[in-house]
Amino acid sequence: MNGSSTHTVTFQPGDIVCEGVPHGANLLRVALLEGVHINASCGGTGGCGKCRVRIVEGKYEGGKSAKLSDEDYEADLRLACRVTILGDLEVQIPEESRMGDAVALTHERRPGPGRVLTAQDLEQLVEGWSVDPVVKKYALKLDEPDAANNINDLDRLKLALKAQHGIGDVSVDFHAIRDLPTALRYQDWSVTVTVVETARGPKVIQVSPGDLTSQDYSIVLDIGTTSIYAQLLDLNRGETVAQASDYNGQISFGDDVITRIVRSQKPGGRKELQQAVVTTISGVIEKVLEKSGIDRCQVSHMVAAGNTTMTHLLLGVDPKEIRIAPYVPAAAFLPPVRAADLGIDVCDHVHLYTFPCVSSYVGGDIVSGIIGSGIFQTDKVTLYVDIGTNGEAVVGNREWLVATSCSAGPAFEGGGIKHGMRATRGAIEAVQVDPATGEPNILTIGGKKPLGICGSGIIDAVAELLEAGYLEQNGKFNRDRAGEWLREDEDGLWEYVLVKEEFTASGIQDIVITEPDVDNLMRAKGAIFAGITTLLNSVGMDLEAVEQIYIAGGFGKYLQIDRAAAIGLFPEMDPEKFTFVGNGSLLGARLVSFSKDMLEAGEEAARMMTNVELSDNQFFMDEYMASLFFPHTDMKWFPRMAEILGKMEH
Amino acid sequence: MNGSSTHTVTFQPGDIVCEGVPHGANLLRVALLEGVHINASCGGTGGCGKCRVRIVEGKYEGGKSAKLSDEDYEADLRLACRVTILGDLEVQIPEESRMGDAVALTHERRPGPGRVLTAQDLEQLVEGWSVDPVVKKYALKLDEPDAANNINDLDRLKLALKAQHGIGDVSVDFHAIRDLPTALRYQDWSVTVTVVETARGPKVIQVSPGDLTSQDYSIVLDIGTTSIYAQLLDLNRGETVAQASDYNGQISFGDDVITRIVRSQKPGGRKELQQAVVTTISGVIEKVLEKSGIDRCQVSHMVAAGNTTMTHLLLGVDPKEIRIAPYVPAAAFLPPVRAADLGIDVCDHVHLYTFPCVSSYVGGDIVSGIIGSGIFQTDKVTLYVDIGTNGEAVVGNREWLVATSCSAGPAFEGGGIKHGMRATRGAIEAVQVDPATGEPNILTIGGKKPLGICGSGIIDAVAELLEAGYLEQNGKFNRDRAGEWLREDEDGLWEYVLVKEEFTASGIQDIVITEPDVDNLMRAKGAIFAGITTLLNSVGMDLEAVEQIYIAGGFGKYLQIDRAAAIGLFPEMDPEKFTFVGNGSLLGARLVSFSKDMLEAGEEAARMMTNVELSDNQFFMDEYMASLFFPHTDMKWFPRMAEILGKMEH
Repeated sequence: MNGSSTHTVTFQPGDIVCEGVPHGANLLRVALLEGVHINASCGGTGGCGKCRVRIVEGKYEGGKSAKLSDEDYEADLRLACRVTILGDLEVQIPEESRMGDAVALTHERRPGPGRVLTAQDLEQLVEGWSVDPVVKKYALKLDEPDAANNINDLDRLKLALKAQHGIGDVSVDFHAIRDLPTALRYQDWSVTVTVVETARGPKVIQVSPGDLTSQDYSIVLDIGTTSIYAQLLDLNRGETVAQASDYNGQISFGDDVITRIVRSQKPGGRKELQQAVVTTISGVIEKVLEKSGIDRCQVSHMVAAGNTTMTHLLLGVDPKEIRIAPYVPAAAFLPPVRAADLGIDVCDHVHLYTFPCVSSYVGGDIVSGIIGSGIFQTDKVTLYVDIGTNGEAVVGNREWLVATSCSAGPAFEGGGIKHGMRATRGAIEAVQVDPATGEPNILTIGGKKPLGICGSGIIDAVAELLEAGYLEQNGKFNRDRAGEWLREDEDGLWEYVLVKEEFTASGIQDIVITEPDVDNLMRAKGAIFAGITTLLNSVGMDLEAVEQIYIAGGFGKYLQIDRAAAIGLFPEMDPEKFTFVGNGSLLGARLVSFSKDMLEAGEEAARMMTNVELSDNQFFMDEYMASLFFPHTDMKWFPRMAEILGKMEH
Repeated sequence: MNGSSTHTVTFQPGDIVCEGVPHGANLLRVALLEGVHINASCGGTGGCGKCRVRIVEGKYEGGKSAKLSDEDYEADLRLACRVTILGDLEVQIPEESRMGDAVALTHERRPGPGRVLTAQDLEQLVEGWSVDPVVKKYALKLDEPDAANNINDLDRLKLALKAQHGIGDVSVDFHAIRDLPTALRYQDWSVTVTVVETARGPKVIQVSPGDLTSQDYSIVLDIGTTSIYAQLLDLNRGETVAQASDYNGQISFGDDVITRIVRSQKPGGRKELQQAVVTTISGVIEKVLEKSGIDRCQVSHMVAAGNTTMTHLLLGVDPKEIRIAPYVPAAAFLPPVRAADLGIDVCDHVHLYTFPCVSSYVGGDIVSGIIGSGIFQTDKVTLYVDIGTNGEAVVGNREWLVATSCSAGPAFEGGGIKHGMRATRGAIEAVQVDPATGEPNILTIGGKKPLGICGSGIIDAVAELLEAGYLEQNGKFNRDRAGEWLREDEDGLWEYVLVKEEFTASGIQDIVITEPDVDNLMRAKGAIFAGITTLLNSVGMDLEAVEQIYIAGGFGKYLQIDRAAAIGLFPEMDPEKFTFVGNGSLLGARLVSFSKDMLEAGEEAARMMTNVELSDNQFFMDEYMASLFFPHTDMKWFPRMAEILGKMEH
């Protein structure tokens, strides 16, 4: 039995069968994601003792707690939040653990999450590429010079490269020449030559003694406004060797691109911001090298994808016009630069390729996602949505692509939310609400004591409150349902309690969702939905025409499609049309690192992508206003919610 | 009357007419260069009072001295060393000023120096080029972006460059992009774009606000082992604006390339040497900028020519194999590099082009000379000789070129000579010897008190001593002529006194030439002559086939052809065949800076040049041994000397 096998868990009453449960999964989490209601108030930390279940049969581990008496334990009662699933299980939910008294009745099998892909799944998305990186190593054996043949080292090398590998007419990076005499003679005229394919022909960037062709690596980076992700790729085998991430060090200069651009205009500001991100990058590179044990000098290439502002700042290019109408970036295509020149801690010969951008707010991260998800080669009309501080949307196929960006605000990253936080340990990432009592059942990332609530948790909470009738479509709490969980604070502001102080991490009071929080979320989802419909309208289409939807973004994996549709972030569509690609930016960066053809495809895609500007766009403004309602003022795309909300009215 | 007019000076007795004497010339110098003997022991400082002459008629200045009584002055007697010629002169040399008593009889009109060209005379040597530099500036006026046309700044620039100047498919240097938003907007979308033609197409290297096309400059450099010369060129007008020179800062690490290569192999040595030469270069650049008052940022390009070792060290390329058989340089063609990356104090966008080398000892300075002197396009079989620490020789024409280098040793630069010094102020640069008494008449550079003797002075002295019978053909002094000027020191070593202590600069004893000095000179001239004949032999030719001879090198201008032939440095040939090109290295650098076609021609010339290696070459060894005699053991090429020396024997 290994970590990749799956199990079946059956819940009673109701005979709810959950298949494909991963080995080692947490029982409470499985129940919650499957829509099986079990009371739990502490986020899955074993603190509240409410989630007791009886394990009728099967292999598992844990579940003990001070909250369970010896008698309980003897009766096979366990805390679901503490149970690790190790085999097929049959689980009975006792009356007292059920949320309200109508568990079995209200349970509805939630739609699957669509395809969930990680950056490892390139093969599933993009066709017709093979591992053929833009940077390659070649082993050469040179003739030793003598009086009769004493041409200079460099020409000797070039002749051998032509004779032994058919690579002629190369240019040679100056840095590769400086120590050439030693490199050639160190291992008896046996050397490894690293060659990069540039737009203007092949270029030798490194010459090392001996045969090092078996060690050829690249580093790909997603330069996010908030986080930076790195992967170390083995270019010979087309595999990921290690990955690491960290917060973008620029965060200390502001949370979003606008504050960073403003900062960059202060004296020394641009340099400061560049150094901050470079320090973060060097740090994550250090991590992947440490994890893999690979020598720094065997890294031959770097590929980075980031939004337009991040790309400008990384390269030290002035981003000032990005935030000023008519929103003109300094450049869309930036030439590859020597990474060491930027201060990145890699060897001298490594060039950093940055993904081309389309406009000020449709950046290289989106182009990368379009490439990495194969949209540039599909016949199907595809909608690609990347949700972060900005929501970017692209629609098109192999023949045309239009893109736009809408300022969603930081709500999906926990920003502008009273107890909002990023999706890290201790963040509430999933929420259920008992329709009868309003009591929440929450899950935190890592099963840690709750610290706050992240994007997917807010979406879940608002969707549940809406469906349970605690929240009205206009974003106001339903005062008629006031009680233990929905209350008015001393200032007369209404809030919903997600976690009571006794179960939160120390120092945190009751974790609540306020009406301003709900309002922020509404505006965020409204901007994205309106962006999508405006984009489609710009090419004379509507949602009907969309054949598949790719969702990228940090929380992609945790997002439940039905919850997102419930609040109106996405339309209700066949879940099979949805694919979560996770970090789309990294996906494309990996692809172009492995395949030089894909690099060209990327540039071609960037060139063909048309930008739709939403500012001053009346259609968008109308759509946006219509979207400021849960899920939408026009229920055409939300039949399930129309039914639920319709029933509630009667 | 201006500085460029010339005058006629007539000396009596003998009715010796010297035409074409430059306005402002020194009378003693004119006499000496014309072979008119006047006594002078102090180098032309007015110290010895021996050079008194009577000015019969004409316009002049100076000539007064404490050595002249009022009576003398009234009788129109003047010190020739103090007379500045301002018009046609008739000069009488009194008996007491004549060297010996046979002045008129021994005087022989010396052959002219051939054509003497300076780096200003490119037009005379090279045909078919026009000012069309590799780096050019273009003025552009861009449309201001608006919502309907908000493409990025860089693409806007590229489109305008294509539309307004027909320059498409450019690459853009990353450094030109960083501040593009400000550059474009600073003067209302009017900018100047600097474009360099690279081997792989046009490249934008700078974008500046406003129209700066009228200011476009380059800097050309001759990177000598001893000295560095810089010229600031106006690329619009094809003119030299300013020049400056300085000693190469690497001198403190050793006088010749071999000691510098050895030094470069010590820890940190290569860096140290690079920094030394870069500091010197930044210094001479500072000087030309100061002299011209031109803004540093209007310098768009740099071209440097140096020998192979100097080129390696300037760029920080390991030169270690240059001094080890089979003498393989790291590279012959080095790609252009950003000058600022080397630490040179110019603007970021300036690229430094270094002349390609042929082999370890035939460097970019020689290639530059071949280009600058037009040999690459002549039909005539041409011999090009550059005399420095190494003597390099090239023979060929537009269809073929062979080159070699012979280690002449530093004698021609005053090295390895007891009182040797570089050709700077106070160096004895011209010598006459009175055949009757052996008394020398000397001239120093700048008319300063003698400090030592430089290359041309040594050649003069040895030639004179030989012709006057004080020196034998085997390089030993003629003991029979011992006396006041030729003497044996306390250790029994023979020496010839050039200047007595009373007339030297303070702290300098008698300035003498020793037999080891003569021996060093013999080996130096022998190596060059043997190199020339070996080179010719390698292509099945001898000196007969040579149609013209170009002499380059620091002392080129001062060297008298008949004196050089007297010692056997060159064969006795029609003086009309000789052209002195001065600093050949700078000549070619200027040319390629003005004309991109010439840059390509230079690379073509370097490629077609074949290197003849002299080490382990038996023919060369035989030629060299035969050359260790004044002028040569084989008098075939020295009929005049054969006659003089023949007369002496009888």
